[in-house]
Amino acid sequence: MIGLYEVAQAAGVSPATASRALHRPELVALRTRERVEQAAQQLGYRPNVLARGLRTRGSRTIGLIVTDILNPFHATLAKGVQDTAEESGYTVLMFNSDEQPDKERRALETLHGHLPQGLIVVPTAQTQENLAVVPGLPTIELDRASGREGAHTVMVDNVAGSREAVQHLLSLGHRRIGMIVGQQDISTARERLQGYREALESAGVEYHDSLVLPGNHREADGRLAALRLLSRRERPTALFVGNNEMTVGAVLATRELGLDIPRDLSIVGFDDSRWAQTMSPALSVVSQPTYELGQIACQHLLNLISGQRLQGSVRLPTRFVHRQSTGPLPAGQE
Amino acid sequence: MIGLYEVAQAAGVSPATASRALHRPELVALRTRERVEQAAQQLGYRPNVLARGLRTRGSRTIGLIVTDILNPFHATLAKGVQDTAEESGYTVLMFNSDEQPDKERRALETLHGHLPQGLIVVPTAQTQENLAVVPGLPTIELDRASGREGAHTVMVDNVAGSREAVQHLLSLGHRRIGMIVGQQDISTARERLQGYREALESAGVEYHDSLVLPGNHREADGRLAALRLLSRRERPTALFVGNNEMTVGAVLATRELGLDIPRDLSIVGFDDSRWAQTMSPALSVVSQPTYELGQIACQHLLNLISGQRLQGSVRLPTRFVHRQSTGPLPAGQE
Repeated sequence: MIGLYEVAQAAGVSPATASRALHRPELVALRTRERVEQAAQQLGYRPNVLARGLRTRGSRTIGLIVTDILNPFHATLAKGVQDTAEESGYTVLMFNSDEQPDKERRALETLHGHLPQGLIVVPTAQTQENLAVVPGLPTIELDRASGREGAHTVMVDNVAGSREAVQHLLSLGHRRIGMIVGQQDISTARERLQGYREALESAGVEYHDSLVLPGNHREADGRLAALRLLSRRERPTALFVGNNEMTVGAVLATRELGLDIPRDLSIVGFDDSRWAQTMSPALSVVSQPTYELGQIACQHLLNLISGQRLQGSVRLPTRFVHRQSTGPLPAGQE
Repeated sequence: MIGLYEVAQAAGVSPATASRALHRPELVALRTRERVEQAAQQLGYRPNVLARGLRTRGSRTIGLIVTDILNPFHATLAKGVQDTAEESGYTVLMFNSDEQPDKERRALETLHGHLPQGLIVVPTAQTQENLAVVPGLPTIELDRASGREGAHTVMVDNVAGSREAVQHLLSLGHRRIGMIVGQQDISTARERLQGYREALESAGVEYHDSLVLPGNHREADGRLAALRLLSRRERPTALFVGNNEMTVGAVLATRELGLDIPRDLSIVGFDDSRWAQTMSPALSVVSQPTYELGQIACQHLLNLISGQRLQGSVRLPTRFVHRQSTGPLPAGQE
């Protein structure tokens, strides 16, 4: 049986690159894509034939609940899950909880009626309780941890990613660094705040509660929090924002206030995106391997379903991308 | 029973605004949002109680198939459908066909097994044949028309939107206007090309086949088509691109070639987006009422399910948004 691994070898690329070339060609250089497609064709690689060969009993249906379908981060997670599921002949029933525990519970109730063999969930603040709706269902927690004992999680290293972003700002001379964080009952938000604190502490900079404002992961919250932070008498000279939707809001707030990025304010966001790359000035960000998170979560779930034992959690590294939205502290602003 | 209409009246806004304030608060001014939330609370508006009251027999499940979940246009359509379905106690099973008729057929087969009461589909090139998988299922075609006789469609006026964009370029003095169109077996792509031709004809400008290149609705295709068009000896002075993903590719191609927008090239995209607003220079676009398209498609489907008769098709108007990516033809370039 010809698998992705054989195609990758024949094309002289990694399996991850081969997978991307076949499923998200827009992420791969044209020449690489053509090489992989040629190898797949020559070897007769057929993901669906493979899937059929693996067919066993069961609904071959898994559930996926993301918390914000309008956030491209979640759309990309979903694509990673769906492409991987499809290669193994599984169908994904997808739901959107809108960050609302109630909606999540209703999604689980509906899902339950459709006899899923497994679940991938981006947890809300009450996933631990809500999962009682689907007792015993093989489950992977994606992007965040609900706190459930023995949970299988697939996440990035939020603490290290956040620390690196703040260290970057510190290295540019900034000391009054504001942060807009997510809801503190969400693990990613706690971890990103922890990274911020650790970076300040390592540099001997005092932590001020008043420089840290919370938001509900959405653009509107990011805007309001930034307006408040940037209207302080002693305005922060730099801002680190805990997710991409809130970063959009913060950038819009900056424009409303007539502040120049990075002259008046340096800004770093968590999570890369198309608008972060095309906006002016292009945004410095903590980049996440989003599509891969979705892929790995799905692979792990399929392994669980087939009876394999998994280790508890996966942490993928983030990568800091320095673009034009961060600059040195202007003279006289220390 | 307190409905959205009562809430809207109490808050002194339109039902559409009230719906947005409750479901997509980021689109609504803070003060409006607070007024609507207050009215909803005072009146005891509970969309789910309402839904339960309406409960009848049936799976209360509808299917939704979009063609590109990574395209924010489709994510927004999906949100409009999901919010509306949820208000009536319906669950949406969502699928992504990736513009591939085969994937669409498999999605329909899977959906069929989950006993849906209706279907909303953004058609691929073979939806008409594929719908044989779900005979008799109430169906709304969204954004595009499959060509099926008697189909219920919810779309924008693509011809008028496209005509307006090209008229704008003509009014700036441009005559050599390139277009990147979608697949011609997709109705939106045909209609947008038609609008381009009509605008040229009205202005007495000859249509040249060689200035129109096709793409498969994705970023990579837009980039390749733009690279070809912009490498011609007689380069177009303006470019009109048929959807937002291909427009990203075209903008990136322009940057690769070192061309300045709008000095060397004016560019207009079809469909607005966050990156179009935040990129530099901000992009002139044909804006679509995307969330509303999803809402209306879902309302119509629920009406169909409850046995009402519908008129065949809905066309919503587009709106031309003039930003900084279009400018007058430079002297000497006629």
